[in-house]
Amino acid sequence: MSANVLVVHGGGPTAVINASLYGVVEEAKKSGSIGKVYGAIGGSGGILKENFLDLMQVPEEKLSLLLQTPATAIGSSRYALEQEDYDAMAGIFRKHGIRYVLLNGGNGTMDTCGRIFEACRGEDIYVVGIPKTIDNDIAITDHTPGYGSAARFIAASTAEVGADVRALPIHVCVMEAMGRNAGWITAASALARKKPGDAPHLIYLPERPFHEEEFLEDVKRLYEEKGGVVVVASEGLKNEKGEPIVPPVFKAGRAAYYGDVSAYLANLVIQKLGIKARSEKPGLCGRASIAWQSPVDREEAVLAGREALRTAMAGGSGVMIGLIRDENEDGGYHVHTSAIPIKEVMLHERVLPDEYINDRGNDVTGAFLEWCRPLIGPELRDFVDFKEEYEKMGVGK
Amino acid sequence: MSANVLVVHGGGPTAVINASLYGVVEEAKKSGSIGKVYGAIGGSGGILKENFLDLMQVPEEKLSLLLQTPATAIGSSRYALEQEDYDAMAGIFRKHGIRYVLLNGGNGTMDTCGRIFEACRGEDIYVVGIPKTIDNDIAITDHTPGYGSAARFIAASTAEVGADVRALPIHVCVMEAMGRNAGWITAASALARKKPGDAPHLIYLPERPFHEEEFLEDVKRLYEEKGGVVVVASEGLKNEKGEPIVPPVFKAGRAAYYGDVSAYLANLVIQKLGIKARSEKPGLCGRASIAWQSPVDREEAVLAGREALRTAMAGGSGVMIGLIRDENEDGGYHVHTSAIPIKEVMLHERVLPDEYINDRGNDVTGAFLEWCRPLIGPELRDFVDFKEEYEKMGVGK
Repeated sequence: MSANVLVVHGGGPTAVINASLYGVVEEAKKSGSIGKVYGAIGGSGGILKENFLDLMQVPEEKLSLLLQTPATAIGSSRYALEQEDYDAMAGIFRKHGIRYVLLNGGNGTMDTCGRIFEACRGEDIYVVGIPKTIDNDIAITDHTPGYGSAARFIAASTAEVGADVRALPIHVCVMEAMGRNAGWITAASALARKKPGDAPHLIYLPERPFHEEEFLEDVKRLYEEKGGVVVVASEGLKNEKGEPIVPPVFKAGRAAYYGDVSAYLANLVIQKLGIKARSEKPGLCGRASIAWQSPVDREEAVLAGREALRTAMAGGSGVMIGLIRDENEDGGYHVHTSAIPIKEVMLHERVLPDEYINDRGNDVTGAFLEWCRPLIGPELRDFVDFKEEYEKMGVGK
Repeated sequence: MSANVLVVHGGGPTAVINASLYGVVEEAKKSGSIGKVYGAIGGSGGILKENFLDLMQVPEEKLSLLLQTPATAIGSSRYALEQEDYDAMAGIFRKHGIRYVLLNGGNGTMDTCGRIFEACRGEDIYVVGIPKTIDNDIAITDHTPGYGSAARFIAASTAEVGADVRALPIHVCVMEAMGRNAGWITAASALARKKPGDAPHLIYLPERPFHEEEFLEDVKRLYEEKGGVVVVASEGLKNEKGEPIVPPVFKAGRAAYYGDVSAYLANLVIQKLGIKARSEKPGLCGRASIAWQSPVDREEAVLAGREALRTAMAGGSGVMIGLIRDENEDGGYHVHTSAIPIKEVMLHERVLPDEYINDRGNDVTGAFLEWCRPLIGPELRDFVDFKEEYEKMGVGK
């Protein structure tokens, strides 16, 4: 009897998580020895309810829509499994002839992946993790599928908003980027720049304590110079004490609700500097954007899905597929995959290293740009700016 | 001696205002009788400073970048001209051999256009307006260049965020749309729907007073049914008394600063219903997005620019180029242009008519969708949703 595969999606979607699912199904077809590729409908909770849909029967034309579908086509959850849930897993897998279990997600899902691996020890069941998170905070892998597209979105959006603010320079504009503890997405906004002076003009990362006075100094100086300033700030900025810079709006039970960092900083500029300011918070738009999906990211997501199944079929288990960047003589960008023991990955959150952040903590370094640039895919569109050309002519007169 | 043209941009940019500028230059080249096409650098203030850049000398390859450049390549301003400024205009135009003056902007700019026309009476100077505003609030014209792209952005973004929320249905998500007094952009979010039940699930327009109790009732009912709800709300929602629904954050001099409608409504859902909620506010991203530029909108913007110059060269003055929708037997979408006396346009703000809003004031009507659909260009991408397919199978069991 041929073996079946189960794919489970965990946590928040990315623009390419479905591309990994596509890669799994394509690899299963190619192998010739897989019966069904089940999607667990609704994430880890879907395993317990045995809500499984076979994707091997889906016509190719429809299946390929996965490559351009945001969110997750089989659903996801933030359901936290209990010990009794783990104990039930092996029985469910056996019942459905599932030999290969692939969990696609971030740090929390990799933790689940490790526990399912433990729970299935001694069984003919192989458990492999596929990394996925816009936040890029998973350890060891060079980067995670999902990040390149979120990075392309913030870079492209910052370039567009930057053009808007330069054309009508009447305010300070604060853009908010996702990534509460890790500044990878926020940092990628720097790829919007094509020449000196381009937006973003200031970048604030959660890896550094936020100093209100320095922020206001920097904004004031840039506003006096340019008239229009674009700031990109992480949604998770904290002060010296490690507390969110935005005071809680209110508390409900144990949970506190905070306002938006972008709105908070814009209000600060208005109140403390008397300068007009506004805020933009694309939020979920940034992880669901297919228009700004990075083709490099999409291809790596497909690759990670394919390799996860290949690894499991080769007897690998308790591992996550990592992307390892090759050091090539041609200077080009290449990656290969590697099976990383899940124990080395589990629950370790990777943040921006010091060498990617400038001394004042308001920008990234050239080393970060070099690392990040290949991940976002083709170069962003060129814009024409006659206003700038005219101003330069004036300077030359 | 050949005559020169001056193009002036006013107010906030759109994704296609540069396309109109492209149309003017192309038409000037075609005519064979135009010397220079000056761009006024930095908007109306640039006229007084005589900051003029000739665009006839720009190579075609570079000029065509205007079609994919957001914001305005010659800059804009919100500078309010004084009577003495108007008095100086004719002299400046004569000095630079400018016979045709084209002003591209919204209601405020059309007002300026009318005043410049008055100020140049009796001169061999022809003043024509090119409509432009994402808000679509200019009178008489069927719609304005700039609107179709802003509409495409909000429809596509709502579809993407809708997929995200459906895949991981753990919260109510409130998207904020631009348009403080007119709900045209907010309404266009309804074009995200491909089938019943798709996002947006609720739409709140500034044309109707906002009733907090009804909003909470609607959200609660939909949340219990779906788990994930997408609300699109205008940034300018007001209560029965016509006051903004968001209390002012603080006051500075005569100006009051309000928080974001989206964040306000999300907090209301958390506090009053105890349901998790979040907010997205793409803001300027929505008027600067080239990825979601509507090709129909871009072509009409080029057309409006071309026609403005043709009209001026034919002796038209004190008029704005309007887009008039043809009633064709084939049912297809066609427009022609018409020169509308600027006096009929000036400072009249067009809002959504009653027949485009449903009775409860939380959605649009089929008549609106029919009117709006052709403006956003090609149909939005298809997404695949195996979760939904599975759930439908379950219902059928």
